[in-house]
Amino acid sequence: MQETNKIATVGIIGFGNVGFHFAHFFHHKNCLKKVFVRNILALKKEYPLLENLFTNDFNELKNCDLILVCVNDDAVNEIIGQLPSKCIVAHTSGSIGLEQIQRKKNIGVFYPLQTFSKNGELHLKSVPILVESNDKSIEQLLLKFGQHFFDKVIVLDSEKRKLLHLAAVFVNNFTNHLYFQAEDFLQQHQLDFDLLKPLILETAQKIQTTSPKDAQTGPARRKDLSIIDQHKSVLTGTQKTMYEMLTNSILKTYEKL
Amino acid sequence: MQETNKIATVGIIGFGNVGFHFAHFFHHKNCLKKVFVRNILALKKEYPLLENLFTNDFNELKNCDLILVCVNDDAVNEIIGQLPSKCIVAHTSGSIGLEQIQRKKNIGVFYPLQTFSKNGELHLKSVPILVESNDKSIEQLLLKFGQHFFDKVIVLDSEKRKLLHLAAVFVNNFTNHLYFQAEDFLQQHQLDFDLLKPLILETAQKIQTTSPKDAQTGPARRKDLSIIDQHKSVLTGTQKTMYEMLTNSILKTYEKL
Repeated sequence: MQETNKIATVGIIGFGNVGFHFAHFFHHKNCLKKVFVRNILALKKEYPLLENLFTNDFNELKNCDLILVCVNDDAVNEIIGQLPSKCIVAHTSGSIGLEQIQRKKNIGVFYPLQTFSKNGELHLKSVPILVESNDKSIEQLLLKFGQHFFDKVIVLDSEKRKLLHLAAVFVNNFTNHLYFQAEDFLQQHQLDFDLLKPLILETAQKIQTTSPKDAQTGPARRKDLSIIDQHKSVLTGTQKTMYEMLTNSILKTYEKL
Repeated sequence: MQETNKIATVGIIGFGNVGFHFAHFFHHKNCLKKVFVRNILALKKEYPLLENLFTNDFNELKNCDLILVCVNDDAVNEIIGQLPSKCIVAHTSGSIGLEQIQRKKNIGVFYPLQTFSKNGELHLKSVPILVESNDKSIEQLLLKFGQHFFDKVIVLDSEKRKLLHLAAVFVNNFTNHLYFQAEDFLQQHQLDFDLLKPLILETAQKIQTTSPKDAQTGPARRKDLSIIDQHKSVLTGTQKTMYEMLTNSILKTYEKL
């Protein structure tokens, strides 16, 4: 392990959605040293703020206290294999277990539980960070480093992190796909998806203070079978199957009440 | 029709989630005249701000330019049947067609496309309002009245309103049920649902400026079959069925890309 009792400087590998946000965040906090990218010229031009920090040489990361690997899951091991062995290296993926990392020393996880995209502001400070290492002293370093910048940082083992990532698929990926289905359905009927946007936002806001069980409304919650039948008669294909499956699940959830 | 060319005063029937919010909103705008409720004594005590406006006598609504009926769908006709025939009466339901209202004169729809609950603030001004009447002059009155207070008010016929309501079931009722399933899954594994709350909020916020199709992320979007298999091996019962159905639908949506 590197002779440090504190993480003060960060290197980032990758400038996809996660790398992009971490790079800007840590640059703003004055602790970003380098960002490793392949297409260095294009990025220097596009992001003048980070111009002098982009590099395509792994050696330039060697003085960073922590290297955050923000690349696709299937590239993580290949990348880590090329990094200076004395640097602490943490990947940022929800679904790669520590045991899957081939390198065994100076490794850890620094997983931000959030959906990232380059458009739009993200309030990174309130994103929960899940950390882990097979070396307790590194785990503590990651924890302390995280707590310095983020509201909620917890140590979580790989198995639990994967379960959390799976739950995240339900509330993010699947939810977004329901938005997509609604938009598709409205387009079929020449109706404007924008009309649903305040409802979408309020649905997510309500859950910040109310449990999903108590927040549930709608025909299935009220057991309003005539509206449900009316809806089924309008829907076709996947949208009908989806409606039936989710409606039945809501009916079943509340049938004992 | 009542001799009016402008709606200036409002009466509200019902003090459920919709009635509660409309009552406070219009009271704040100085145009609320009366709120009809059954349990008048309890409510006068609980809501001193509206104390003098509560009534349990339909006659006291007779001078309102507009009566908003905010009761359960199956009570709408019974209530409207008891109201002074010279008053314009509008129900606030997404799924009751104009043609289902037994009374044929001085009727309309004033439907707020939002999920309502008594806890929590609601920014009612930005809620889309859908209006309709079988009488064009009443429709215009409702439209003008709505536009005075709300950002987005549109005329929409019953059939389209029902389709919009069905799409709302997808983005609100079903989305909330996914939150519920995620919470249930995390509880099974002693994990804290609160960790997902920033993600839930960001998922809804992202869609305000990005189309659901572009916002989609996750293993199904990336066609990451090994993660999908890993997830399936952890899930059971309804949650597994739900995961498979939604994952397959996402895979299908992007398979041509």
